[in-house]
Amino acid sequence: MGSADDIMMEAGGMSTVKLWTDEDVAGAPKVSAVFDDIRATRNSDFVNNFWRALANQPELLQRTWASVKAVMIEPGLLDPLTKELIYIAVSTVNSCTYCTHSHTAAARAKGMTEQQHAELLAVISLAAHTNSLANALQISVDKEFLVD
Amino acid sequence: MGSADDIMMEAGGMSTVKLWTDEDVAGAPKVSAVFDDIRATRNSDFVNNFWRALANQPELLQRTWASVKAVMIEPGLLDPLTKELIYIAVSTVNSCTYCTHSHTAAARAKGMTEQQHAELLAVISLAAHTNSLANALQISVDKEFLVD
Amino acid sequence: MGSADDIMMEAGGMSTVKLWTDEDVAGAPKVSAVFDDIRATRNSDFVNNFWRALANQPELLQRTWASVKAVMIEPGLLDPLTKELIYIAVSTVNSCTYCTHSHTAAARAKGMTEQQHAELLAVISLAAHTNSLANALQISVDKEFLVD
Amino acid sequence: MGSADDIMMEAGGMSTVKLWTDEDVAGAPKVSAVFDDIRATRNSDFVNNFWRALANQPELLQRTWASVKAVMIEPGLLDPLTKELIYIAVSTVNSCTYCTHSHTAAARAKGMTEQQHAELLAVISLAAHTNSLANALQISVDKEFLVD
Amino acid sequence: MGSADDIMMEAGGMSTVKLWTDEDVAGAPKVSAVFDDIRATRNSDFVNNFWRALANQPELLQRTWASVKAVMIEPGLLDPLTKELIYIAVSTVNSCTYCTHSHTAAARAKGMTEQQHAELLAVISLAAHTNSLANALQISVDKEFLVD
Amino acid sequence: MGSADDIMMEAGGMSTVKLWTDEDVAGAPKVSAVFDDIRATRNSDFVNNFWRALANQPELLQRTWASVKAVMIEPGLLDPLTKELIYIAVSTVNSCTYCTHSHTAAARAKGMTEQQHAELLAVISLAAHTNSLANALQISVDKEFLVD
Repeated sequence: MGSADDIMMEAGGMSTVKLWTDEDVAGAPKVSAVFDDIRATRNSDFVNNFWRALANQPELLQRTWASVKAVMIEPGLLDPLTKELIYIAVSTVNSCTYCTHSHTAAARAKGMTEQQHAELLAVISLAAHTNSLANALQISVDKEFLVD
Repeated sequence: MGSADDIMMEAGGMSTVKLWTDEDVAGAPKVSAVFDDIRATRNSDFVNNFWRALANQPELLQRTWASVKAVMIEPGLLDPLTKELIYIAVSTVNSCTYCTHSHTAAARAKGMTEQQHAELLAVISLAAHTNSLANALQISVDKEFLVD
Repeated sequence: MGSADDIMMEAGGMSTVKLWTDEDVAGAPKVSAVFDDIRATRNSDFVNNFWRALANQPELLQRTWASVKAVMIEPGLLDPLTKELIYIAVSTVNSCTYCTHSHTAAARAKGMTEQQHAELLAVISLAAHTNSLANALQISVDKEFLVD
Repeated sequence: MGSADDIMMEAGGMSTVKLWTDEDVAGAPKVSAVFDDIRATRNSDFVNNFWRALANQPELLQRTWASVKAVMIEPGLLDPLTKELIYIAVSTVNSCTYCTHSHTAAARAKGMTEQQHAELLAVISLAAHTNSLANALQISVDKEFLVD
Repeated sequence: MGSADDIMMEAGGMSTVKLWTDEDVAGAPKVSAVFDDIRATRNSDFVNNFWRALANQPELLQRTWASVKAVMIEPGLLDPLTKELIYIAVSTVNSCTYCTHSHTAAARAKGMTEQQHAELLAVISLAAHTNSLANALQISVDKEFLVD
Repeated sequence: MGSADDIMMEAGGMSTVKLWTDEDVAGAPKVSAVFDDIRATRNSDFVNNFWRALANQPELLQRTWASVKAVMIEPGLLDPLTKELIYIAVSTVNSCTYCTHSHTAAARAKGMTEQQHAELLAVISLAAHTNSLANALQISVDKEFLVD
């Protein structure tokens, strides 16, 4: 598998923008501050390609990271794993290869078992099935479902 | 609000197929068996329009209801509310009006609070935001995310 | 049902553009020529709202009607009903309310039975189911499927 | 082309789950039973990656294969090639790389000519064109299209 | 048209959440602060339903409004009308009825002519057409298009 | 990067149809005429893979190129760069890898700066964010947004 993986890595050139190396980041204080916070928050030196691509847009990088921190990392009423499952569901329907990979990995890192993954897939695919039926049938909403 | 609601109900004629009344169902044993099982399983006399539209396709009705029972009702590793949250996420991205309404109602019936709904919306909209970025940037997948 | 239908008709004002009446069309030769050809080709006086909305964009109206004639009306290797079934499938996935309604009606006008509609729905919903699985699993393409 | 194909095969590691080899399958009776039925039904020893990925979820594997058999293989009112054309249409709009490849190959195996493929593409792209217009214009449905 | 419009207004009950009235807002300082800023920034007393629905989620309301201000209102390199055209394009493909209506109205308020709207529709529908072809054909990217 | 690029090129075999070489084109007058016009119009000898794939469908090739010329190349009220930005937006939401790459390259060729690209991404991702909220909340359209 090694050589295929290496090609994936080299394939960084296949993004529509340059992926910033740590050296590129070092010379850009705004970007550097976000990368430092990503590393500190995650307690890891690894910064994935999504942020290296967004580095070309410092304001968007800042805003996006701030949202990720607020929504996915700060404690809330939904537990972290549930949020990753929802993230995978959205990414799947949007046909986002990168996000599906990165959030499936994130869910596993947060404890998702293969069994839970299997149930997640069962729910996603059932919803895709009934969504297409309801859209094809243009079913009108029962008044019982409406809020007062 | 009453008159608007009534119109919604009358709007049954706006589906692309006939919505079956209980009288229609009574004359069709295959459909009737599914409706009976829906009512018994849910312990409620209410059968929503989705099933009344699918009644035109008895085999598809049977198969779809069997899947809903297996995935959403039989106990599994994901709790019932989590499954509804995932269902809402998929339905939202597929822009399915009927499913978004029916599963938001179902999630509330299973205990979803307005706060949890708010967090769900925060995750869905963050995922939509980063999905669009990853798709626009065509970011290549980090080898760290790949399974061995 | 009558009053709900009337509201649907009045709801013409809910388009993002004006729907052209026959009087509006009469004063615009480019638009008028297309409407005449629609009526002659279909052998019917009825011109549906899609064309009445596109009348605001004469060049787009012309080009779109020319494509519809070439693809959907001129004889080809796929029969007219098969083409309508494909059209419904695409419209369903794109969550296009108008197109789903208009092409389901068109398919019925070309002979689609309720049984065939049921099978169409079974195929669409199965494809939606397996599409979501393949996208969630990011399954790599078997070399057996690739063209030489 | 050989080397690129090999990389595609090696790229099995790029799925978000393990692809099961025949040896893995041999040790899992539930999975094994489905694989046996796939081979018997298709009268071929080849089992494509979709099923090798789903093998991680035996219940979902069973349910999905049962639906594929019922919808795509058992005789019905729509002929097998028409069903594949509809499948390609749905897969295209859902931007499903795997499904587009596998069902284009399946359609060719069932006799789709390049000319028929060309017409299919013409219908899909026309529908995508008019869907986007109807959605942008939010055209209201003509009462002539509604079912009684 | 009057009565249909009234029904649309009453249809506020058709959202999956309560739409906040000005009285509801008055009792919630966090929400009130955002509504005040919306009114001050837009120099108008009118606050549209999108914000009245988001009022149920004060943090999401704050973050969303902050992003709208930063991206759509603060001066940048793309002029305000161009940004609205892009917004309409995204909303159309996502089949978002509310967003298509609100941003078509916003574009008109910023000077979009019917002719410009017509050209926008021509570009959106052409892109939808070629997108579906490229996805159906799974065309591989020319190396000439890749960044170094 | 060289080897990854080469693999991309070899990956021409990964399309679902044959990509036509100049030699293939030379023997097909209908296709040849379109390729000649593409080269003359763009004043470049380079013909990208999209057209080499469409060459399998001469009528669709002709119609598609005629639309691209009319919409994207002939002067109109929207300037050429604005049209490319809209094209990227649509392609992103449709998750079209090929179109996102080719139109990002086209936008750069027409003068898009990295700063403008950054703003485009900010608008697209904000729209994706609010689209998902409006669809999840099923917000009803304010009567202020409706056309008379």
